[in-house]
Amino acid sequence: MTQLLRVQNFCVSADGFGAGEGQTLERPFGHADPADLVSWAGATASWPGRSDPGGSRGLDDYFTRDFANHIGAEIMGRNKFGPQRGPWQDHEWRGWWGDSPPFHTPVFVLTHHPRPSFTLDDTTFHFLDASPAEALDRAREAAGGLDVRLGGGVATLREFLDADLVDTLHVAVAPVELGRGERLWDSPDDLLDRFRHEAVPSPSGVTHHLFWR
Amino acid sequence: MTQLLRVQNFCVSADGFGAGEGQTLERPFGHADPADLVSWAGATASWPGRSDPGGSRGLDDYFTRDFANHIGAEIMGRNKFGPQRGPWQDHEWRGWWGDSPPFHTPVFVLTHHPRPSFTLDDTTFHFLDASPAEALDRAREAAGGLDVRLGGGVATLREFLDADLVDTLHVAVAPVELGRGERLWDSPDDLLDRFRHEAVPSPSGVTHHLFWR
Repeated sequence: MTQLLRVQNFCVSADGFGAGEGQTLERPFGHADPADLVSWAGATASWPGRSDPGGSRGLDDYFTRDFANHIGAEIMGRNKFGPQRGPWQDHEWRGWWGDSPPFHTPVFVLTHHPRPSFTLDDTTFHFLDASPAEALDRAREAAGGLDVRLGGGVATLREFLDADLVDTLHVAVAPVELGRGERLWDSPDDLLDRFRHEAVPSPSGVTHHLFWR
Repeated sequence: MTQLLRVQNFCVSADGFGAGEGQTLERPFGHADPADLVSWAGATASWPGRSDPGGSRGLDDYFTRDFANHIGAEIMGRNKFGPQRGPWQDHEWRGWWGDSPPFHTPVFVLTHHPRPSFTLDDTTFHFLDASPAEALDRAREAAGGLDVRLGGGVATLREFLDADLVDTLHVAVAPVELGRGERLWDSPDDLLDRFRHEAVPSPSGVTHHLFWR
């Protein structure tokens, strides 16, 4: 059975930015207001961060509830994991997500500065200095036959796209312009040479772009 | 945690029919050609009946791959299970689905003529002479904390809707008219008194109607 590499619920602005400029501890999305990019997801019943009942169960909810469906591991770039750059100054940093990260699987963090693995709740973070293809091999092995999610950020997505390792992408384009930051694409058309594509507008205002090969 | 009762991938014609007139062993959908109603689903990568690789991974695939997501039991009417009416003449009949039914959970078949339970692969069929509320209690108990899918057909959906037991519905409306048969609704608007609603057109030609409360 094929183990796909899937990008899911990756949020970008109308002008193609997945994050603003100047990531810091206080501003993980730099100058961008993350609410502008991800509030469509937070409004759904299946948003992993939801603590209260309620939330919509329309189109957007199909995307948030597919986040973990048939996923056995995640790969992410170091900048998704945290704001530090270069050698680790602070080993106490264990990600943005508190004691119960929303992954519930092994997570492979790509970094030129490996550090020991650790476990929070049912998520174990591993740190790899590896090529995209090597990281994908490791993640597939850990995924127990299930698919692997590629979590971002933008630089990591672009590396895996350049290596032609991505099987499916779901990118949610929000109706906001950021002007600068980490750019995924000039336009969704950039990927049409390799992927089939559907654009599905949602009543929430975002447009879900689906790519597969 | 709430256990929802969910209708998923229920297919009807543009004029609201879930099946044609005159169900028989050879024609489970009566005079209707089932391909007109369900071919959108068969074209997706995640269609449970798919034996070859391939298939689309666009919008329609989100619906077929949500079919089993977080589902622990199914309830269906007797006419979905088979073409016999009245007391069972043929106990050898074990459903339309061969030796590997696509449910993989307990399935509760509503009938005024109970018969012994049996298991095919990882699906066990139970036969209940019960009200919708009683059947739902039994299915919830069997679902191990997961949701329950209400599989149809039309008469069964209408009974559960009349009893106000349905939490979410996904109905795929195909661009074909049947003229007669088992009618779910005059129009999706029939449900707006109790449900929130989104209509999502798909490139395949069907429109996905999503209802939740």
